[in-house]
Amino acid sequence: MTGPGADPAAEPAPGPAAGAGAPVLAVDIGGTKLAAALVEPGGRIAAYDRAATPGGPDLDAEGLWRALEVLLGKLVAGAGDPALAGVGVGCGGPMTWPAAEVSPLNIPVWRDGFPLRARLRARYPGLPVRIHNDAICVAVGEHWLGAGRGRDNVLGMVVSTGVGGGLILGGRLVNGASGNAGHIGHVVVDPGGPPCACGGRGCLEAVARGPGLVAWAREQGWRRESADATGVELAADARGGHPVAVAALRRAGRALGVAIASATHLCDLEVAAIGGGVSQTGELLFEPLEEAFREHARMEFARRVRIVPAGLGQTAGLVGAAALVFAQDRYWSAG
Amino acid sequence: MTGPGADPAAEPAPGPAAGAGAPVLAVDIGGTKLAAALVEPGGRIAAYDRAATPGGPDLDAEGLWRALEVLLGKLVAGAGDPALAGVGVGCGGPMTWPAAEVSPLNIPVWRDGFPLRARLRARYPGLPVRIHNDAICVAVGEHWLGAGRGRDNVLGMVVSTGVGGGLILGGRLVNGASGNAGHIGHVVVDPGGPPCACGGRGCLEAVARGPGLVAWAREQGWRRESADATGVELAADARGGHPVAVAALRRAGRALGVAIASATHLCDLEVAAIGGGVSQTGELLFEPLEEAFREHARMEFARRVRIVPAGLGQTAGLVGAAALVFAQDRYWSAG
Repeated sequence: MTGPGADPAAEPAPGPAAGAGAPVLAVDIGGTKLAAALVEPGGRIAAYDRAATPGGPDLDAEGLWRALEVLLGKLVAGAGDPALAGVGVGCGGPMTWPAAEVSPLNIPVWRDGFPLRARLRARYPGLPVRIHNDAICVAVGEHWLGAGRGRDNVLGMVVSTGVGGGLILGGRLVNGASGNAGHIGHVVVDPGGPPCACGGRGCLEAVARGPGLVAWAREQGWRRESADATGVELAADARGGHPVAVAALRRAGRALGVAIASATHLCDLEVAAIGGGVSQTGELLFEPLEEAFREHARMEFARRVRIVPAGLGQTAGLVGAAALVFAQDRYWSAG
Repeated sequence: MTGPGADPAAEPAPGPAAGAGAPVLAVDIGGTKLAAALVEPGGRIAAYDRAATPGGPDLDAEGLWRALEVLLGKLVAGAGDPALAGVGVGCGGPMTWPAAEVSPLNIPVWRDGFPLRARLRARYPGLPVRIHNDAICVAVGEHWLGAGRGRDNVLGMVVSTGVGGGLILGGRLVNGASGNAGHIGHVVVDPGGPPCACGGRGCLEAVARGPGLVAWAREQGWRRESADATGVELAADARGGHPVAVAALRRAGRALGVAIASATHLCDLEVAAIGGGVSQTGELLFEPLEEAFREHARMEFARRVRIVPAGLGQTAGLVGAAALVFAQDRYWSAG
């Protein structure tokens, strides 16, 4: 299946040339950090490095590309320049897909579009280069080796500064018409709810993203005097029993429960795996989540879904990016 | 992929034995009527018959089965007893799938479970027998030959006494963990909304099903004196400009728009095709639907979805049931 964004260039198959044990160079490109790893065929991370995403008034698109090249070059050289099975990348969206001209919302110098796949192909000639949305890579990682392993119908979610996700159905990653399937953050949980950065209203992300929780709690009087109170402080106060902080997590948890109920009615899931910073508040989030889910998911097939914390932590996105190459039968249907 | 409901018996392949042009015996089993057709490989309906679904205090499960057998026998005999490529069935849910022990909510004598697939296999030995939810068959029909033809990512919907649907992603029918994917009627459009027959609250179906529209309109004063006012009368009054009738359709249309926005954010659709009696109210439903959809679907990929009336009308379910056999690569992944 190829869409309008398909890259017509032939994609080399991973593998034999590089030897059966060759690693994938996995990359995770976000607004705050660039991370890279050499991931072995079984998913083990053999080498890892990271750097703060460069910024500042003097940086341009090529400057960010050079910083990425340096990080990757150092990592591969440090590991003794092994032959690679391919390059797998998770990058903040939006992007055209599978051509991966990326225009990440939270990376200003690339926001007008950067031809990431084409540049990586030129840098790593002869290797498959596969790029997907960073939240989709997290979901793929969780399905391949994490909380969704062994299940055919899995929603992987990241609840953090934003709310993203990826959808595996019938054992295979769902891309949708343009590679954008999995946007659980924009499932509507309250049509009259708060405005969302997407331009809509009442999206899950508008309610449950970390900054949304903090904004709501401040409106309710939480640390109104402290202009820079963060989600970390909100979570700490909630653990200490502060009623507004508890209520903020409860509100986010219930919104997540409603969205997951809708998703499972539509997709008949087995597992919803939730990662990201906000999810690390544990029961303060998961209890109201389960409560709302149970209220809205009443049919037998929907009640069977297990809602669990993600299993792989910070490296899920890198592991998932590697799986785009290692397990292409399940996770890569494009050219 | 086989789930707990999988039937381990080997399913014969359709075809060559019966000749390349052999029709499928397609069946549509609902609470008000039983319909059957001989559908040719290209989708043409070569013969058709129907009967009211029998009921009454003296009917039992076997009585309904015999009525179905008579209808099918008469249809096939009337066409000169052609060799069949297989049997495809759409039936009201819920059911185990793919084993199709059916327990339709709106067919009392089968509500405790009837082994429909096993009985049809015994009746038509040597032929593939494939059964799915009736709304899924409508969606399959619309994808195969109707409003979703030629697109890979399609949501087919039926808005009628209930609200059902089916989901085609990446060119293939999505079954989910238990054959229940496509339940768009239970996507939550208003968490504090009206109670739903499923036990939940604020489901699309609770707002947009025909009887739900009528109930809401009556609460607002529409024909309060007339105890048996129906959706047909409501639609007629709406066309005549009655403000409460117009508002009832507007409320349903907006709920549909919200649910389709959620669905396309999650699944990245190309087409949503809407059939069923309520959808025949035309612009009175589709205008508020589009309005709410545009308010909630703001990201570029989501705005591209086309929302269209279904193309096949009353026969979509029969055509889709035939496609379970004729186009098994796309619509039948089970045993």
